[in-house]
Amino acid sequence: MTERELHDLAAGIRPLAPADLEAAQARLDNLTKPPGSLGRLEEVAKRLAAIQRTTRPRIGRKRVYTLAADHGVTEEGVSAYPREVTAQMVLNFLRGGAAINVLARHAGAEIVVVDVGVDHDFQEVEGLVRAKVARGTRNLARGPAMTRAQALQALAVGVDLARQAARDRVDLVGIGEMGIGNTTPASAILAAFTGLPPAEVVGRGTGVDDEGLRRKAEVVGRALEVNRPDPSDPLDVLHKVGGFEIAGMAGVCLGAAALGLPVVVDGFISTAAALVACRLAPRAAEYLFLSHLSQERAHIRMVEHLGQEPLLVLELRLGEGTGAALAMPVIEAAARILSEMATFGEAGVSNREDSP
Amino acid sequence: MTERELHDLAAGIRPLAPADLEAAQARLDNLTKPPGSLGRLEEVAKRLAAIQRTTRPRIGRKRVYTLAADHGVTEEGVSAYPREVTAQMVLNFLRGGAAINVLARHAGAEIVVVDVGVDHDFQEVEGLVRAKVARGTRNLARGPAMTRAQALQALAVGVDLARQAARDRVDLVGIGEMGIGNTTPASAILAAFTGLPPAEVVGRGTGVDDEGLRRKAEVVGRALEVNRPDPSDPLDVLHKVGGFEIAGMAGVCLGAAALGLPVVVDGFISTAAALVACRLAPRAAEYLFLSHLSQERAHIRMVEHLGQEPLLVLELRLGEGTGAALAMPVIEAAARILSEMATFGEAGVSNREDSP
Repeated sequence: MTERELHDLAAGIRPLAPADLEAAQARLDNLTKPPGSLGRLEEVAKRLAAIQRTTRPRIGRKRVYTLAADHGVTEEGVSAYPREVTAQMVLNFLRGGAAINVLARHAGAEIVVVDVGVDHDFQEVEGLVRAKVARGTRNLARGPAMTRAQALQALAVGVDLARQAARDRVDLVGIGEMGIGNTTPASAILAAFTGLPPAEVVGRGTGVDDEGLRRKAEVVGRALEVNRPDPSDPLDVLHKVGGFEIAGMAGVCLGAAALGLPVVVDGFISTAAALVACRLAPRAAEYLFLSHLSQERAHIRMVEHLGQEPLLVLELRLGEGTGAALAMPVIEAAARILSEMATFGEAGVSNREDSP
Repeated sequence: MTERELHDLAAGIRPLAPADLEAAQARLDNLTKPPGSLGRLEEVAKRLAAIQRTTRPRIGRKRVYTLAADHGVTEEGVSAYPREVTAQMVLNFLRGGAAINVLARHAGAEIVVVDVGVDHDFQEVEGLVRAKVARGTRNLARGPAMTRAQALQALAVGVDLARQAARDRVDLVGIGEMGIGNTTPASAILAAFTGLPPAEVVGRGTGVDDEGLRRKAEVVGRALEVNRPDPSDPLDVLHKVGGFEIAGMAGVCLGAAALGLPVVVDGFISTAAALVACRLAPRAAEYLFLSHLSQERAHIRMVEHLGQEPLLVLELRLGEGTGAALAMPVIEAAARILSEMATFGEAGVSNREDSP
């Protein structure tokens, strides 16, 4: 994908139509319940309706894309787990034994695993998309994590995944990730866009101790100093301090928004990708649903920055798309409220106007 | 049910066994994820495991009991909707057009509607349990809402519902309600047990204005003054300032706990019932899961008082069991995590101990 193509993709995202939102609100207020009494569900239902351009939205086929990649920054000792766990977990996903397998199955969603940069050669196997950009990024504490061309390549992988979802008539796409060390690039992206100090953007990830936490902040500080990412140029930030799975997920967000498909965003790392996507194309935000507030402490900063409220607060900090899978039934429930509930008139129930 | 039988039922609730909780925790820590990374899901999974006395809990059949009743206190003008809406909504439930129908269907749960005190004579119909104690309570602002014998009768209705669920091999019971005016008795119960002033226990219910809110606080104040409910005698509180559906739901909680069945509690009114149940039998708390934090502002006080954290915060304020239905997939997901995920050994994934 060229920068021009990326620009055209972003420009092609349709803003939600006020008339569609109003029609959905009118129907919501006429259903047999006090107005607004289904809270966040009503807000989700309304946005889904405007995305699908109907007052009866429908979520049928659901798919979680779990993008995996390795990170050169692991050589700085920023993770509680060894680097080879990325590849091992990809194999676990393909065998169905990971949390995301269980939760996607439970949500009635397919899971598609995408190797966008794992340091391992996978065989061709059902359920795996092989789209490796490189065998892991370079160490962002010493220079750019990837080239600008590689960032575009990884974005294009994500855009293609969104296109495949649209071709397969998927109604709701979830994004999640696996990549030992990837909370560090996610933190660096947050710092680069917001100017927050390194100590405020890092967290314990999969479980580093106090010393590890200090090291992560120091590494983020060095990454910013060495690379000087330009916050007004999202591609500059992405290629210098990002990761292949983060770029890929940003591509899914952009591609899905351009195709009119809603996306459920997982936790801290996925939200960093959403942040990149919204910097590249602010209108993409209207197609994104934040699934949950992560236990990773800087996630709240990211969420505030995006100006969206996550649906769930379950103290998760696993990634893989687990939060996205858990939120899918809630999003689907919202659609069904709008599509399946009776109105006051249909049900013969007195509305509050009839009250003495 | 006699008071002696109620006492025996409460005494028969088995406390969860520390060994069962530990076995579940050990398995959780051995699954392919960082320890604790599934947050609240792990806590739910552990408790389900101890309730079912297995490390592989299973939630198959699910049922929501929606208990309906009328309230004499509606003559004080405490609701935004007319009293006849209780019966109209029961008919809406039976025709499948209400929010709880949509959300229960979505959760894969059955819904059973129970007339425990509606001011209307219903025909015999599939999906309705007819167990009316009386055609609504009396006005609690002028005297006891019901007799002590009626409270026991309504509790027994709930205990029978729990028994029926156990006979039908239901694995998870949800409780919810419909009753125009019933936030007022729920508020009065909260005030009676905690000593909180009337102005702090009331909220807007289905949508009263500032004047309505003042009236509700004034009515709760009068109810406490006229009835002087004794907080050390939960049956005294229940019969003087409760409601038939609240008593019935408290009975479901007690009966289910005694039978080793987990219960998902809906919002403000259902939690008032849970509060009564836990005052009658503190051990019942181990079998209860609070589904969501209601938008009704005093719910947080109730929840704090119970010492439990609700699973969802979706700004709901509808009742019917809608929050319980929305939480069921989360609870089921927790069970499946423990039962279906691979361990590090099974998956050949390096654990953090292998880290350099």
